[in-house]
Amino acid sequence: MPDYEIYSLGDFVLQRGATLRDAKLAYKTFGKLNAKKDNVIVFPTWYSGQHVDNEWLIGKGMTLDPAKYFIIIPNMFGNGLSSSPSNTPEPYNKSRFPQVTAYDNVRAQHQLVTEKFGVKKLKLVVGWSMGALQTFHWGAMYPDMVERIAPFCGSAKCSRHNFVFLEGVKAALTADSAWNNGWYDDKPEKGLRAMARVYAGWGFSQAFYRQELDLKALGHSSLEDFLVSFWEGFFLPKDANNLLTMLWTWQNGDISDNELYKGDFKKALKAVKAKAFVMPSRTDLYFPPEDSEFEVANMPNAKFLPFESVWGHFAGGPGTSPNDVKFLDGKLKELLAS
Amino acid sequence: MPDYEIYSLGDFVLQRGATLRDAKLAYKTFGKLNAKKDNVIVFPTWYSGQHVDNEWLIGKGMTLDPAKYFIIIPNMFGNGLSSSPSNTPEPYNKSRFPQVTAYDNVRAQHQLVTEKFGVKKLKLVVGWSMGALQTFHWGAMYPDMVERIAPFCGSAKCSRHNFVFLEGVKAALTADSAWNNGWYDDKPEKGLRAMARVYAGWGFSQAFYRQELDLKALGHSSLEDFLVSFWEGFFLPKDANNLLTMLWTWQNGDISDNELYKGDFKKALKAVKAKAFVMPSRTDLYFPPEDSEFEVANMPNAKFLPFESVWGHFAGGPGTSPNDVKFLDGKLKELLAS
Repeated sequence: MPDYEIYSLGDFVLQRGATLRDAKLAYKTFGKLNAKKDNVIVFPTWYSGQHVDNEWLIGKGMTLDPAKYFIIIPNMFGNGLSSSPSNTPEPYNKSRFPQVTAYDNVRAQHQLVTEKFGVKKLKLVVGWSMGALQTFHWGAMYPDMVERIAPFCGSAKCSRHNFVFLEGVKAALTADSAWNNGWYDDKPEKGLRAMARVYAGWGFSQAFYRQELDLKALGHSSLEDFLVSFWEGFFLPKDANNLLTMLWTWQNGDISDNELYKGDFKKALKAVKAKAFVMPSRTDLYFPPEDSEFEVANMPNAKFLPFESVWGHFAGGPGTSPNDVKFLDGKLKELLAS
Repeated sequence: MPDYEIYSLGDFVLQRGATLRDAKLAYKTFGKLNAKKDNVIVFPTWYSGQHVDNEWLIGKGMTLDPAKYFIIIPNMFGNGLSSSPSNTPEPYNKSRFPQVTAYDNVRAQHQLVTEKFGVKKLKLVVGWSMGALQTFHWGAMYPDMVERIAPFCGSAKCSRHNFVFLEGVKAALTADSAWNNGWYDDKPEKGLRAMARVYAGWGFSQAFYRQELDLKALGHSSLEDFLVSFWEGFFLPKDANNLLTMLWTWQNGDISDNELYKGDFKKALKAVKAKAFVMPSRTDLYFPPEDSEFEVANMPNAKFLPFESVWGHFAGGPGTSPNDVKFLDGKLKELLAS
């Protein structure tokens, strides 16, 4: 019994030209949609994460309380549950899975929210990392529908440095000849492990490692144990083509790269009417706070509220850092009360 | 005609147990040793660099003026000129080349300086990156011999985060099955290119990429052109086993990991009598200034003098950033005058 539902999007025409026939959007909901349909929160997933990986922020006693809100977690295309290289039938399977943008993802989510649930307003869109990318997209694509956004540890556009970081991740995965341009039968294990090791230096900050939080906070027995158990263990179960699909989505993320804004990034930022709490981590190595400051400066109704944390990108991570979760939960409460 | 000389070290017993028989130290000198032998500067090489890659800091009108100083550039073991996997005869060739520490490198350099040139005092030891690691070693291993040190964009001990960054570089290179555990005939081209792409995100800062200095200052035609031409072009000509040898040296760099200090890092720092200008780059992603501050705080005669630069690790790079070269050259002048 899966713990999620599937919404059939029909033949979904993607921004870059392909059609995902009988496209699937996997999602999970929490709480009940009220009669006025005004208690809806959308919480998109992050790179390689699935809905279950968002649940740490939801619960009784948390701001995202299902007793109060109707919370929808839509799974990103390529994450193995929504349409992905790993679950799409021929001929668009595996390495032929088409290029999907964040714009495509959010259009699909909009279809779910409006057609399936008849919802016209969103109280909040919130997301971590690539979830933040989708959150920004919601704000820019549907400015009259989205009342609040809380993108954390992410950006509205993939920066050039972030792009390069991802080039390294991709190059490590695809250097393994077992990858075979995506036509593998057995998974490219060396490539997945290499990708994990590349990611390890980026995910947490220099100070995190200096303070040995991999041992003292996360309980690993050695640095190598952290690299094998946490990092390799994280990526090994995932499908390489899925990972590459989402990586492409990430690298090409840009709220202005569509017919609405035609590449005018500042115009797209200005169009976001939602009240926005933009929350980078002070020590995030691939979403540095400077990029968030630029975004906030160009949005009409936004606040810059960084995590003062040494946890790097994982300040906003999947519930990994208790103090940062507390900070985030408090800011979400403040935002929803406003 | 090579532009360098070879010093035969004889049978050189390494710290980790192997003996490099008929070990070679390649070096180049600039200027003349004066009668008092008190005008000597040692300038070790960096990761994968060779003596020619240090010459940007030497010349008429520069602080390191051959008219005034006798400058010795010793090549690091593993860099392809001194004893390396690529030039050592069987049986210690290729993948069997032994583990060499920075301590071993500096002992070999000390042998050259004292036996070949009869030098008893060094006016200055200076180096970038792994050259800084060797510079710190000089200060800690020969405190009565070294009057000044100027390690820039480097550290006295490989930090845990820096170690993880290098794990990613190594994993990318060795994910290529053409690497074949070091027993390749043809070079592992995919691995070398992957390693280069991983390195690209680390070498320069987020701000460097944000300001498009790869295009505007370094003259590349696109970001991809920078990745291929600058980064892949840099690593492709190098031997994979050589790169892995130096990477091991780097990961295991620690001025206290020897019989003098028995792992007591603070004790080793305290022992450095030399007047030290420790110069990290403010935006260096793998040698962050915080590590230098710790070193300076524990050295008796050291100053913390960061490059206020967006060039990341390449602030101290091979002459790449003119303003930073100017800053460095000025500080070296100040240090030598004191």
